[in-house]
Amino acid sequence: MKQHFSYMRRALQLAQRAKGRTWPNPMVGVVVVKSGRIIAEGWHKRAGGDHAEVDAFKKIGSKTKGATLYVTLEPCSHWGRTPPCTDAIIKAGIKRVVIGVLDPNPKIHGQSVKILRKAGIKVEVGFLQEELTRMNEIFNKYITKRMPFVVAKCAQTLDGKIATATGESKWITSIPTRNYAHRLRNEFDAIIVGINTVLQDDPRLNPIPKTKYLKKIIVDSSLQVPLKARLFQGTAPSNVIVATTAKAVNKKVKQLSKMGVQIWMAPAKGKHGHIDLKWLFKELAKHEIAHVLIEGGGCLIGRALKDGLVDRMMIYVAPKIIGDQDALSAIAGLNIRNIKKVLKLKNMTATQIGRDILLGGDLVYGNH
Amino acid sequence: MKQHFSYMRRALQLAQRAKGRTWPNPMVGVVVVKSGRIIAEGWHKRAGGDHAEVDAFKKIGSKTKGATLYVTLEPCSHWGRTPPCTDAIIKAGIKRVVIGVLDPNPKIHGQSVKILRKAGIKVEVGFLQEELTRMNEIFNKYITKRMPFVVAKCAQTLDGKIATATGESKWITSIPTRNYAHRLRNEFDAIIVGINTVLQDDPRLNPIPKTKYLKKIIVDSSLQVPLKARLFQGTAPSNVIVATTAKAVNKKVKQLSKMGVQIWMAPAKGKHGHIDLKWLFKELAKHEIAHVLIEGGGCLIGRALKDGLVDRMMIYVAPKIIGDQDALSAIAGLNIRNIKKVLKLKNMTATQIGRDILLGGDLVYGNH
Repeated sequence: MKQHFSYMRRALQLAQRAKGRTWPNPMVGVVVVKSGRIIAEGWHKRAGGDHAEVDAFKKIGSKTKGATLYVTLEPCSHWGRTPPCTDAIIKAGIKRVVIGVLDPNPKIHGQSVKILRKAGIKVEVGFLQEELTRMNEIFNKYITKRMPFVVAKCAQTLDGKIATATGESKWITSIPTRNYAHRLRNEFDAIIVGINTVLQDDPRLNPIPKTKYLKKIIVDSSLQVPLKARLFQGTAPSNVIVATTAKAVNKKVKQLSKMGVQIWMAPAKGKHGHIDLKWLFKELAKHEIAHVLIEGGGCLIGRALKDGLVDRMMIYVAPKIIGDQDALSAIAGLNIRNIKKVLKLKNMTATQIGRDILLGGDLVYGNH
Repeated sequence: MKQHFSYMRRALQLAQRAKGRTWPNPMVGVVVVKSGRIIAEGWHKRAGGDHAEVDAFKKIGSKTKGATLYVTLEPCSHWGRTPPCTDAIIKAGIKRVVIGVLDPNPKIHGQSVKILRKAGIKVEVGFLQEELTRMNEIFNKYITKRMPFVVAKCAQTLDGKIATATGESKWITSIPTRNYAHRLRNEFDAIIVGINTVLQDDPRLNPIPKTKYLKKIIVDSSLQVPLKARLFQGTAPSNVIVATTAKAVNKKVKQLSKMGVQIWMAPAKGKHGHIDLKWLFKELAKHEIAHVLIEGGGCLIGRALKDGLVDRMMIYVAPKIIGDQDALSAIAGLNIRNIKKVLKLKNMTATQIGRDILLGGDLVYGNH
């Protein structure tokens, strides 16, 4: 049993070698064990390439006969870009399969276990489940909810402020933290900001160093984004998506479209005619944009939290105090009045970054 | 040189054995080294008892001759409750003295070094200075400024709130954190709260478990403290000090005095006639109250910060979000509008306590 965990941990390590390269597939790792030692290792390297099981099998030919397969995720049993892994496992003569977690897709969850057992293979399930689920959290959310995995980021003082009462905000955090945050953008498919952040800070929204072109999404119900905003720099205009509503002036729509910018007409919501964020996020998922970073402002984050759309918070806390009730709060517009109804987070972490501290945590919605 | 640090570290460990018991003296530890090995260890155990040097010397008699003495703090050269240690060192025939830090009192800083050198003893100074200074930070502040070392504590949500806009606040932090905070009170000589905290929360302000009777200090310019407030429970009335001003009604002063409560008439300050906290803290120091915890509310902490009286912040952060600009901020009344003038902290730490995170940091006043 203890060995199961140690082989599974090795398979997890192998899976993570392809971090960021398997999308829209999950990360998967395997080890093949015979007579108490590992005879082959494999992992899924990129979408379209061999699945982890096949990657390992190819290395050892017929030695798979009678071996035990440790695999982080339930093997597939359907034809996708490659043939079903259940077939390959049966053909390889594997005697026992130890699975970390079942397929997150409720429609096929457990299906391969049945197929393998029917073929006379011993199957055990459920090892390192928490870590393995976390490893593929973006994939899992996409598969089960058809929604992107959303991280909301803010930078605040110790007393939770992003700007003084007069709106001064440059800078709350230190240079190492801002560099860290800029580098982190590379992990996402898209950054989202509200129009007020664009008008106030005119950010570029590029990852630094730039290892990819991510989408820049502006939530802009009245289409106020300036044609010369700096966010149009350092990327193709088609990487900018401006979500707006019927309030947008036609001429501006045409100007931006002509530049090559994507304009998405979103339904409005509530008395202020805000963009329906749920609609927007669903739309992003349809475009295979699965990992999204909301960079502010406080009201946009508040609205996304209110709609239950945020999975994780990342709060950079600078060792500073403004000490003013009227200074701007990092998160606004949720307006929770009943202390029992506050939003809750779990899995809190604290990381020192230069002089600042990064607090992270996962949102818990509902009755947890 | 490397050995100097390792012997000094040992001396520091010895000094800390008497943590909380040496007041109004500092913690001091020594090791005596001869022919490359420690022949005696000593530390100052309590005020009135032997100084660390003498404590060690007594254990080895004349073996001190020709030895090296490692001592965390510059030895005393004056008559206090015990004779000067410089005399004892010279008499013991010590050949070399290695000192961690010099005496913090500017009037006698370096004096003993001169005396020892004049007596032909080799003296080296400055090892583990940061840690040794921190170890005696309360003593050091008291000696140099004649003011208490002040820690301000608050408990807030991730977004820096202590209560919803309607004033609901029970509870922000979890039970393990509240227990931790209650236990921590034992490290202080006194707890200070503002009258609004008394009126709203009616706290007992006792350490749990109670290992000492600390002073409870109420900042109450109009003397509104209820005669039946729970803070009068679990302690002698004379342990409660109510600081008030001329606004206090005479009858109430008499009632409280009759109960045995200490009433301190403080000067008022500013347009709201708030108690002059600087005066109050000076007064506390005069009463040998050297280690003080401000437990709130947000305005009292803000005023103490404004007056530059707070040395350290301890902020318990609960994994919760209220997300409301109008919710009550943990620190108020500083009202800094210029981002360049925000208060700054250094030595930030983050500690997980149950589900909450404790952020700590030291205030940096002036141009740091």
